[in-house]
Amino acid sequence: MRKEFKKYSLVVCSMAISFCLLAQHPRTFFTPEEARHVSQNYNKYPLSRQSYNDIKAEVDSWLHKDIDVPVPKDPAGGYTHDKHKYNYTLMFNAGVLYQLTGDSSYAVLVRNMLLKYAALNPTLKNHPEATSSSPGRIFWQALNDANWMVYAGMAYDLVHNFITPQQRKHISEGAFKPEVDFVTQELESWFNLIHNHAVWACAGVGIIGIATDNQHYVDMALKGSDKKGHSGFIALMDSLFSPDGYYTEGPYYTRYAILPYMLLANALDNSQPNLKVFAHRNSILQQALNTCLQQTNVGGGFFPLNDALKEKDYTTNELVTAISISWKAFGPNNNWLYVAKQQDRVMLNKGGIAIAAALQSGKVPQYFAYKSIESADGANGKQGGVSILRAGPPEKPTSLLFKYTSHGLSHGHYDKLGIMLYDQGNEILTNYGSVRFIGVEQKYGGRYLPENKSYASQTIAHNTLVVDEQSHFGGKESEAEKYHAYKQYSQLGNPIVQVVSAADTNAYKGIAMQRTLYLLQLENRKPMLLDLFKVNASAQHQYDLPFHYSGQLIKASFNYQANTTRQQPLGQRNGYEYLWNEASATVRDTIAQLTLLNNSTYYTISTLVQDSATLFLTRLGANDPNFNLRHEPALIVRKKAANALFLNVMEIHGRFDPKNEFSTNAYSDIQTITLLRNDAAYCIATIQLKSGDEIKLAQCNNNIVSAQQHSSNGLTWTGPWCLWLNGKKI
Amino acid sequence: MRKEFKKYSLVVCSMAISFCLLAQHPRTFFTPEEARHVSQNYNKYPLSRQSYNDIKAEVDSWLHKDIDVPVPKDPAGGYTHDKHKYNYTLMFNAGVLYQLTGDSSYAVLVRNMLLKYAALNPTLKNHPEATSSSPGRIFWQALNDANWMVYAGMAYDLVHNFITPQQRKHISEGAFKPEVDFVTQELESWFNLIHNHAVWACAGVGIIGIATDNQHYVDMALKGSDKKGHSGFIALMDSLFSPDGYYTEGPYYTRYAILPYMLLANALDNSQPNLKVFAHRNSILQQALNTCLQQTNVGGGFFPLNDALKEKDYTTNELVTAISISWKAFGPNNNWLYVAKQQDRVMLNKGGIAIAAALQSGKVPQYFAYKSIESADGANGKQGGVSILRAGPPEKPTSLLFKYTSHGLSHGHYDKLGIMLYDQGNEILTNYGSVRFIGVEQKYGGRYLPENKSYASQTIAHNTLVVDEQSHFGGKESEAEKYHAYKQYSQLGNPIVQVVSAADTNAYKGIAMQRTLYLLQLENRKPMLLDLFKVNASAQHQYDLPFHYSGQLIKASFNYQANTTRQQPLGQRNGYEYLWNEASATVRDTIAQLTLLNNSTYYTISTLVQDSATLFLTRLGANDPNFNLRHEPALIVRKKAANALFLNVMEIHGRFDPKNEFSTNAYSDIQTITLLRNDAAYCIATIQLKSGDEIKLAQCNNNIVSAQQHSSNGLTWTGPWCLWLNGKKI
Repeated sequence: MRKEFKKYSLVVCSMAISFCLLAQHPRTFFTPEEARHVSQNYNKYPLSRQSYNDIKAEVDSWLHKDIDVPVPKDPAGGYTHDKHKYNYTLMFNAGVLYQLTGDSSYAVLVRNMLLKYAALNPTLKNHPEATSSSPGRIFWQALNDANWMVYAGMAYDLVHNFITPQQRKHISEGAFKPEVDFVTQELESWFNLIHNHAVWACAGVGIIGIATDNQHYVDMALKGSDKKGHSGFIALMDSLFSPDGYYTEGPYYTRYAILPYMLLANALDNSQPNLKVFAHRNSILQQALNTCLQQTNVGGGFFPLNDALKEKDYTTNELVTAISISWKAFGPNNNWLYVAKQQDRVMLNKGGIAIAAALQSGKVPQYFAYKSIESADGANGKQGGVSILRAGPPEKPTSLLFKYTSHGLSHGHYDKLGIMLYDQGNEILTNYGSVRFIGVEQKYGGRYLPENKSYASQTIAHNTLVVDEQSHFGGKESEAEKYHAYKQYSQLGNPIVQVVSAADTNAYKGIAMQRTLYLLQLENRKPMLLDLFKVNASAQHQYDLPFHYSGQLIKASFNYQANTTRQQPLGQRNGYEYLWNEASATVRDTIAQLTLLNNSTYYTISTLVQDSATLFLTRLGANDPNFNLRHEPALIVRKKAANALFLNVMEIHGRFDPKNEFSTNAYSDIQTITLLRNDAAYCIATIQLKSGDEIKLAQCNNNIVSAQQHSSNGLTWTGPWCLWLNGKKI
Repeated sequence: MRKEFKKYSLVVCSMAISFCLLAQHPRTFFTPEEARHVSQNYNKYPLSRQSYNDIKAEVDSWLHKDIDVPVPKDPAGGYTHDKHKYNYTLMFNAGVLYQLTGDSSYAVLVRNMLLKYAALNPTLKNHPEATSSSPGRIFWQALNDANWMVYAGMAYDLVHNFITPQQRKHISEGAFKPEVDFVTQELESWFNLIHNHAVWACAGVGIIGIATDNQHYVDMALKGSDKKGHSGFIALMDSLFSPDGYYTEGPYYTRYAILPYMLLANALDNSQPNLKVFAHRNSILQQALNTCLQQTNVGGGFFPLNDALKEKDYTTNELVTAISISWKAFGPNNNWLYVAKQQDRVMLNKGGIAIAAALQSGKVPQYFAYKSIESADGANGKQGGVSILRAGPPEKPTSLLFKYTSHGLSHGHYDKLGIMLYDQGNEILTNYGSVRFIGVEQKYGGRYLPENKSYASQTIAHNTLVVDEQSHFGGKESEAEKYHAYKQYSQLGNPIVQVVSAADTNAYKGIAMQRTLYLLQLENRKPMLLDLFKVNASAQHQYDLPFHYSGQLIKASFNYQANTTRQQPLGQRNGYEYLWNEASATVRDTIAQLTLLNNSTYYTISTLVQDSATLFLTRLGANDPNFNLRHEPALIVRKKAANALFLNVMEIHGRFDPKNEFSTNAYSDIQTITLLRNDAAYCIATIQLKSGDEIKLAQCNNNIVSAQQHSSNGLTWTGPWCLWLNGKKI
């Protein structure tokens, strides 16, 4: 958590709010005018018509039925959990249909369900399956109760004018008040967190406030339970995103958090337009949306920074909602249009109708315009960040991720200076993501599995340096939250060579780590990555640099001892106990190479070994009695030294065509890697390619001033790095 | 090999052939009239225009260049191999372009390359990388030399009229004669095999014969090197396919063999139309094409029966050629049109033009019309066969394969009564296929890897019974080739229940195996498989029934001991040495269940255990020092008995929606499985479902007469099996 200075804070006073709360309903999801606009237009465009029909078919199948509102019992994935989840969506959709059609059957459905909740909710204590520090009542965790509040609140508002004042009172006091009281009083500290859970909680309380004309609720939602503004929605807008719209938990959770942000902002914009909530902090919500969309792989899967499930992509409901609301709030955007086409549905609001109209016009971009992008972390943008370097064709780029952020709250991983590589939409250097089967009751109720903490968040699970088999910060969240890595310099403008350098001095006490990545796009060649990971300490340590990869091992350049008839884990703790040691090798003064095949492309990792190193080929899956893990391979390079440099080259090369039984350029093009200098001041290296080209790299390790002139080994250059191709600066 | 009676043999006499050999050239790939037709029409339709442009762009890049015809040196995947392979395609395409454009540059390219081969070929001895019993000269194996002969022969024919009589003589004697002599004399027994290699060899010799007006070559191609008709192309048409068009090596090799069949048949039809070669044996080539297309998964991947690489599908060059030639020979076909659309290219012959025209007309079917299909094996159709039961939507059916064929020559696997299950295009119960990286030089020159014989073809690698950890027929091909399994009965007509029963008494001496599969498609339910595997012996044995699966293990109903910190192989030989023993359980009087998740669907295997059984959860990858294997999981059910019944139910159920975090029907619906009777005469069982339905199954084990009346346990029925749903026969 962080509570930092808020230079964009809104002037919010209760009087102003009271004044702005318009008397009309609905006003949470849309206003009467907007509802009329949707009603008159949804049928004109195929996508909005289809979205309407989908909702209608679903809701109609429940009309005139007695809908079960069960006593809470099951964890996620179980019947009562899924039923309540289904119920709030059903109520919301029925409310929308009531507004669009005027058919009172829909309103009756919502009213009857809300009355059942009004009877149920006052009877509830903590959920019997509650295991979290923020237990729920309708659900096992309070977060899901907040989801319920958001949608049930909007549903109430949508049928507000249909139900009697007495029913309103009954629902407000029976269905809503126990939930609001619970989260704002019993879970007060949780409600006042600067955390995505609190965004949901504030959205729930705020939307219920707006729907039930309860100013007290709205005030708490905006400014925290003490109404002082240190917490609550405005503080969350100011503190949870960096100025670039990066959310410290990563894009997977931006996806999750953006929904309540958008829904409450939308409801506030309808009820209190003078707040100009969408313009707040340079339109931070628009920034957040665009940033999380750029942090996806080709096809829309969110890059797995911190806890993240790879199944989630930008077609999820959260982003359908965010894009429909953003289109209304911020206007047209080609990338959003492209994503909306993949989503293949819209919300039935003004933005959704406009998107459907734009899609029908046919001027849809052929691909999402991915670009190289850097996002600072931290509310002030000064807590490190994440860089994504992209090269190759924009519709299927190579994407290199480099993470030098702060920890990422409770979903953070111990992965300072970790990298991931994607190529043509495929994961090449991988990150496990999180160990969880969301919505699968048999897998611990769909919750995070124990291996999420014990393996997936540990340092060894990431493509970054592990010292002495310990995770960063000793694997302690409280310690990790104190620090962040930081960027030294970067260059993203020149497509031929893009560079990012970042460093960390806190993950291990007394140890300085610095990693510099060069993504080259040379003529007639696929992108190539040069990766210099430098580590300095005063005493000798064991340094492990893993490359988790996806692909078939085609060839290793080194002789290894394979553990073919007996396998044991690589280590005992900090994630090592999950890695089977499949093979190992001790090598000396060489370039150790591993060639992989992923889909139709070859990839070769080359790592320079001066003196000696031990290499391990590992596979995930040891100590996994419940079969929770995917059995993924890794190459681990181990060096023992005080100071060490890992100089790695990743080539993307060739083509495998099994249908025509051809391979081209199936071999690495690297002839030699020569380290001409490596000390506190400079790293200077030459990479000689078999094809004849020579790449020379000079990097200054202790001066990052861009105007500084350097000379060493007969080379002269300006700034912290320079590259030469065949003697010519690039 | 088999040389069986040929009731469809052609009347072929040398005189008739001589008479029919038309004097005009070209006549192998197409005739002058057909070339004119293509030339006048290819530009009218997008697909033929594109196919033409693709070839032209490729060939044009080589015009007026000195093209390397290197001295053979490398294995598959290496430079000289790939170059010669590229060369013959280049010569053929250039020849086609010469005919279509009249541009002599193309003819010059072909002529110059053939003259280089005329200089090279007489100097060649066996290839330095030759390891096969049929070594090649230009390539490491003779099979590739035969490929060269086919395309080089057509290329020669296409430029025949351009080159001088002296050059023709020089090429015929220098480039072709050494190759023809080599395969028909030094490799005479290989040339005369009844095997797919021989189809290529005959096509090579035959096409060269037709191209060079050499009647001797044509006679050998048609009737074998002794011209007696026991071998050669006609014998191969009569013997290699069953009457259903099933090729004993499986569809992956049908794909490969069909190309030379089609190309030589096409050349014969052009040069000797009176042979009516396409009509031969009830149009057996058309049958073969349709059968191998039905033996694909949704999307076109060939089902991996015997040696087969899963990367190959119906978009490969062989099937582009086969469909373009078949369209010309047999007329239009909707399934071919669908496949041609996926292939996205056509041959530049009359059929290809007609396909391109049909595609432009837009009347393309939405999906390939998959159906349940049975294919007998053996030239006489009496050597067992393979059944594919299909259920569910035709565009994405559930496909159950059941293999009770003969061995399948040198590519055969020891897999009698093996099954595979596909659902919605996904592999569920899997078959490894073969261990080979075709075209990847680093992997043993792209050849079959040692693990192909030692693991992939062994019985334990298949979903069928292994007795005493031995493979069928002791893993001896010569022994396996003597026998075949056989079908007892089947019913494919009724979509609600489809049944196949097959048996084998030779795979293990003194042991009788009988497997009966029931694929049910009950109302409001996904398809369900009932699988009764019965084995009888006079003494006690160890019976292992594996289920190789693809998916994430979600839940096991039994308590197992997981080998979490140390792993060892499950056994020592016959494929067992490749399986890590990940976990094991001893269970007693229960239904052991394993629930898997594959993509968005759940699958539960339930196996009835009376008395006791041991269960193993294994993973492939032990004893694999070169990382040649994919690490795939299996469940193995082990029973020790003289007589045993494995009663298994495979449910396809529910839906996993990670985007919306919902699962539906994630649990098995099986309440109880009760075996009411199990003896030599009958198996009678009841499956009680939690949803209330009751399925009753009665099967007669020793009488398969369809009119036979039976009664047992209060049930009466007619024929070898009967099923009841809630007391009503289905």
